[in-house]
Amino acid sequence: MLGNTFGRLFRITSCGESYGDAMMIILDGMPAGIRITDADVQKDLDRRRPGTSPLDSPRQETDQVKIVSGMLEGCTTGAPLGMIIYNVDRHQIHVDQYRQKKDLHRPGHAELTYYVKYGDSFDWCGAGRASGRETVGRVAAGAVAKLLLARESIEVVGYVKELYGIKSRPMPFDQIKANLLKTKISCPDLEAAQKMIEATLKVKEEGDTVGGIIEVIARGVPAGLGEPAYDKISATIAHGLMSIPAVKGIEFGAGFELARMKGSQANDIPYVENGKIKFRTNHAGGVLGGITNGDDLVLRVVVKPTSTISIPQETINMVKMENTKLAAITRRDPTICGRAVVVCEAVVAICIVDHLMMARGYEAVQKLDKPFKI
Amino acid sequence: MLGNTFGRLFRITSCGESYGDAMMIILDGMPAGIRITDADVQKDLDRRRPGTSPLDSPRQETDQVKIVSGMLEGCTTGAPLGMIIYNVDRHQIHVDQYRQKKDLHRPGHAELTYYVKYGDSFDWCGAGRASGRETVGRVAAGAVAKLLLARESIEVVGYVKELYGIKSRPMPFDQIKANLLKTKISCPDLEAAQKMIEATLKVKEEGDTVGGIIEVIARGVPAGLGEPAYDKISATIAHGLMSIPAVKGIEFGAGFELARMKGSQANDIPYVENGKIKFRTNHAGGVLGGITNGDDLVLRVVVKPTSTISIPQETINMVKMENTKLAAITRRDPTICGRAVVVCEAVVAICIVDHLMMARGYEAVQKLDKPFKI
Amino acid sequence: MLGNTFGRLFRITSCGESYGDAMMIILDGMPAGIRITDADVQKDLDRRRPGTSPLDSPRQETDQVKIVSGMLEGCTTGAPLGMIIYNVDRHQIHVDQYRQKKDLHRPGHAELTYYVKYGDSFDWCGAGRASGRETVGRVAAGAVAKLLLARESIEVVGYVKELYGIKSRPMPFDQIKANLLKTKISCPDLEAAQKMIEATLKVKEEGDTVGGIIEVIARGVPAGLGEPAYDKISATIAHGLMSIPAVKGIEFGAGFELARMKGSQANDIPYVENGKIKFRTNHAGGVLGGITNGDDLVLRVVVKPTSTISIPQETINMVKMENTKLAAITRRDPTICGRAVVVCEAVVAICIVDHLMMARGYEAVQKLDKPFKI
Amino acid sequence: MLGNTFGRLFRITSCGESYGDAMMIILDGMPAGIRITDADVQKDLDRRRPGTSPLDSPRQETDQVKIVSGMLEGCTTGAPLGMIIYNVDRHQIHVDQYRQKKDLHRPGHAELTYYVKYGDSFDWCGAGRASGRETVGRVAAGAVAKLLLARESIEVVGYVKELYGIKSRPMPFDQIKANLLKTKISCPDLEAAQKMIEATLKVKEEGDTVGGIIEVIARGVPAGLGEPAYDKISATIAHGLMSIPAVKGIEFGAGFELARMKGSQANDIPYVENGKIKFRTNHAGGVLGGITNGDDLVLRVVVKPTSTISIPQETINMVKMENTKLAAITRRDPTICGRAVVVCEAVVAICIVDHLMMARGYEAVQKLDKPFKI
Repeated sequence: MLGNTFGRLFRITSCGESYGDAMMIILDGMPAGIRITDADVQKDLDRRRPGTSPLDSPRQETDQVKIVSGMLEGCTTGAPLGMIIYNVDRHQIHVDQYRQKKDLHRPGHAELTYYVKYGDSFDWCGAGRASGRETVGRVAAGAVAKLLLARESIEVVGYVKELYGIKSRPMPFDQIKANLLKTKISCPDLEAAQKMIEATLKVKEEGDTVGGIIEVIARGVPAGLGEPAYDKISATIAHGLMSIPAVKGIEFGAGFELARMKGSQANDIPYVENGKIKFRTNHAGGVLGGITNGDDLVLRVVVKPTSTISIPQETINMVKMENTKLAAITRRDPTICGRAVVVCEAVVAICIVDHLMMARGYEAVQKLDKPFKI
Repeated sequence: MLGNTFGRLFRITSCGESYGDAMMIILDGMPAGIRITDADVQKDLDRRRPGTSPLDSPRQETDQVKIVSGMLEGCTTGAPLGMIIYNVDRHQIHVDQYRQKKDLHRPGHAELTYYVKYGDSFDWCGAGRASGRETVGRVAAGAVAKLLLARESIEVVGYVKELYGIKSRPMPFDQIKANLLKTKISCPDLEAAQKMIEATLKVKEEGDTVGGIIEVIARGVPAGLGEPAYDKISATIAHGLMSIPAVKGIEFGAGFELARMKGSQANDIPYVENGKIKFRTNHAGGVLGGITNGDDLVLRVVVKPTSTISIPQETINMVKMENTKLAAITRRDPTICGRAVVVCEAVVAICIVDHLMMARGYEAVQKLDKPFKI
Repeated sequence: MLGNTFGRLFRITSCGESYGDAMMIILDGMPAGIRITDADVQKDLDRRRPGTSPLDSPRQETDQVKIVSGMLEGCTTGAPLGMIIYNVDRHQIHVDQYRQKKDLHRPGHAELTYYVKYGDSFDWCGAGRASGRETVGRVAAGAVAKLLLARESIEVVGYVKELYGIKSRPMPFDQIKANLLKTKISCPDLEAAQKMIEATLKVKEEGDTVGGIIEVIARGVPAGLGEPAYDKISATIAHGLMSIPAVKGIEFGAGFELARMKGSQANDIPYVENGKIKFRTNHAGGVLGGITNGDDLVLRVVVKPTSTISIPQETINMVKMENTKLAAITRRDPTICGRAVVVCEAVVAICIVDHLMMARGYEAVQKLDKPFKI
Repeated sequence: MLGNTFGRLFRITSCGESYGDAMMIILDGMPAGIRITDADVQKDLDRRRPGTSPLDSPRQETDQVKIVSGMLEGCTTGAPLGMIIYNVDRHQIHVDQYRQKKDLHRPGHAELTYYVKYGDSFDWCGAGRASGRETVGRVAAGAVAKLLLARESIEVVGYVKELYGIKSRPMPFDQIKANLLKTKISCPDLEAAQKMIEATLKVKEEGDTVGGIIEVIARGVPAGLGEPAYDKISATIAHGLMSIPAVKGIEFGAGFELARMKGSQANDIPYVENGKIKFRTNHAGGVLGGITNGDDLVLRVVVKPTSTISIPQETINMVKMENTKLAAITRRDPTICGRAVVVCEAVVAICIVDHLMMARGYEAVQKLDKPFKI
């Protein structure tokens, strides 16, 4: 397996899988002199933690993080931050359950492609590295990234925009933040949230699962981040988000709606007000030519319905190469949208810090006297 | 400016801008022993070339490519392929036109963010590196990538799926290929193509522009490509496609529709037929856990309507920081969707070759006896 | 701090410092299906471990490694290998000793440059990340790399070639291996080893330290590894070795002696014997044009004398910016050459695996029918 | 072939080979707003150009460089700088000469390893990409890097320190600069230079060639550049220099002499004078813990004697796999040390700019108030 490192200067490397001993995260590019505690990271991990509501998998992981390197007396030293989270809810009974089905492809899951790639030694236990557990590492790193961004007054906030067709109505940024943690589904429109939860529980009863759309807004991002050619900030964010398990699409600003608009409608008209540049609309999602324009960074990802369902399915035995049936599976998330919000925030935050470092390094060598700041 | 290289092993590095002397492409990771001619590359460049129909910008670029390194007596040697394309349609009259407006932000364009980032020396001429001309490099590299893929019977085909709300009806892969070049809009549904062209010309008359959706299908991609964590094949393809100018979203398989589906609908049910694994549907777009599953790779991108319109717009003078007006601009593409098809194909092809190299290198060290091949 | 990842496909990322809680290593690019135990890694760690002879620092670290991810039932799964080693010999008394001197620059050490780079929050405790403790990560990863190489019958063996002017006489490869662990100084010429140890202990009595030269030989490396331009195998190995603390030079084959030779002397004359290509000499150190030629890879690094001495030295107070004195320091290694041998082996082994993956991936896409194998 | 890009943020990608049409260089990470002309680059290329003295190969290349992208009206725009140099001295007669010997391994050259790696299609003409011609790209990029460094008052100067055993005596930096171009051998000690030239011409008469040692000094490098772990500035410079054809070793500061020194001799004692930190010696070569300490960066590389000699040699026919003879070759450099000086300078300059960008980017995010500057 390749590719367990993400980022250029500020970068996360992670390991760990569903039923391994521990998840480890190494965060490179850490500035020195930052006060940080395990609790700062734990806060975001708790938002992702399973087993806290009927919407989640019943798996009980405490997800207790410990920072084991990169600190001296409560303060970062500049050395890479090492974080470790031990897996606790791994019982032999579950291992044995997975073992029984290890030759079967669970539709929508990755064991089929893992088997092709890694052969008989592939990790059949709890989806291995393909499990959503991998995202623990992203959330831990993202929590640190957000701390750094907060020093520049940059906020990254995600929420469930749509679930199984039920939409959150548009709301001001501050209200999104205020309501975000009020429901387990991370939807700030509390009325819609209620409907989402009810719909999900109903579908859960049927043994089924639902998907949805998460929107992430980054406010306060300075203009000028992103590299114009292959490393547009929208491109590196898309890379990071599309690598989250279950994410199958991403769009910035007006996104796919742009296919039905004319140029005169799509263009965001700028104006100067009190010496600052503003825009009448934000169809661009805050990105022009791959570079932030000072407006909110706005993007959405689609999260597919959880593949694990408790309805029997047709499938194949990968080893015997024959058709067979997969019985209903009970331990599962009726939806992962709520828990995935903080994962998406994390990836966006990591990308922004990375681009900040690249942009500031480039500028320092350029020594431009910038004529203005959006 | 950073980030003018894309790919890990098989990688493109490019330079060149709208009004520079030349576009150069260096393609690293080239295998030795491949017969290739300028004409093989030219064929795809001609599909992207402007000025060939009323749908395009009237700019006349011949886009003649010359391979200047990496070859000996008609055959690649393994050394990086160097390609150069001189810009020819760059007249003083156009430079002067751009100079007059260089302090103005053309809504939807990147000069605002370039000015923030590069200061007074930013390239105000024809959009500089932010111009669609940058994609010449991708197309040239993509043409070579496709040649390599053809040796493994992998085909990458794109087409306009939707334009300004007009949709191409679903068609078999072979018919898409057969019809692709029959119209200037690269839509294989010839009836829809006709409507698209008419609608575009009508909008053009109004001085406006339209956007659309491009679908790319890669057939014959072996199962097992893609790295499970941060470098899922869907993630690196998303990175590459989202870095194409004007692309604002990407989705794989059922994409954003998954937000409205249940797990039991979304899961692609596999079956074995004649010793091969097949799927009843392809909602996953050929990717499970970030790894190709042997089915078609299917993805779509949204292309925003061209920002340049010949309708006057409100805007700002970036230098004086004051509100002003931008007059209508006549030299422009009413839509770039048709021309962008081959650009999207190129990026996908480059990514697949890159993943092939990574996967094959990994496997060789692993020395797995693969039990089967999808 | 940036740059805590090394390698392209097979790559190590590490964190941890002298007085942190733990050292963590994430090894990416791991093949699946390899049986491996903690003991396989421990074996090499024990060769690097301090406190085992009067030649070492008296610091008592057990360096017990635990593999916490990437395995299932004793076998690698292809997921990144996560390894953790807790630091145990970290007592408050030592922390307090370091604290007292934290504003002083210990000549030859890195606290001066760390202070410049990381400011007041720099890690003043036991040299932080600049400590030789960092190399624990390299050794752990290297042990795994050697296991992989063993499957291709590639062996990587290092030894102390020279210490404080005392030279090991030339010996056959098998004898080097046989004698390597017989002395604490890792010199296979047992007579020279005895002299080295005596000289070192004598210098230790004076409160001083000594440096030396380590040679590494990799036998069985197939011809064809290395990338011809910027990533010659000699270049990436030089990168890795020069990044080991205390290493200040590296040379391949005849190395610096080539400055005094003529071309006719330097050229290694090839000949064919029993259908195989051999060379009469190995002045090239097994590398032609940056690519292995099938002969032994042979290189040497110079290791400076340990900077910590128990002789008082003139120095500066970095904070007050004034001249001062540094008292003698007692806890130290009279030489680190013996312990550094396995570190050098590790870096070379990691580089070879990385190049193997790159070369095999490239070749697979090239599908060359190789006409012969050296 | 992989690995034709070097650097992280400021990075060179190049292509071109001995008998290809052209050498192309793409320099990424270029700051905007720099006035630069072809002549600025040409100046350094002329120092590397062959055919200008009896010490060089008689090949006549004008090496005329043209900047074809990244500029607008004489000033860089921030877009990557594209440079092209057409090969002119490539006559059919030489191609035919190479063709006759294409199955033979010329001892010391790379065709053997290229043949293994690239098969029958390997480039047998004039050493292909393994030719010293590749270094044209480094020199062009290095000339630009030096321009950038000059703005921070950083100078990078190399010279021939030793040739065929004849040594240049130690000289002050300014005198090295003053004398550098006075002789064709780039040795500032004019007396030694005379001896070097005489010795070389004498060896040339014998049909043989000589090697030597080049020292590079970078003055004015600020303290704090380099990344402490795997990307120490000494490590990335070693990477770059060891990838230059014919370079077989590198050492910083006292280098291999450290193997014979005690710690008390090797440590550079610091002192404060006029509010600045200085050192009594520079055995460290300006690097502590992989980070520049504000003193001169000093390093040396060994350049092997040119492999091409006009003395007949035993060798093999690689295709037939049989022993044979190689006749004397007349077109060659009696030594390449003089011409390689500017190549070494270039690599060091590129590395410093790259590290400057990384360090400044990191610091900006860190927002340290640096307490002092060395």
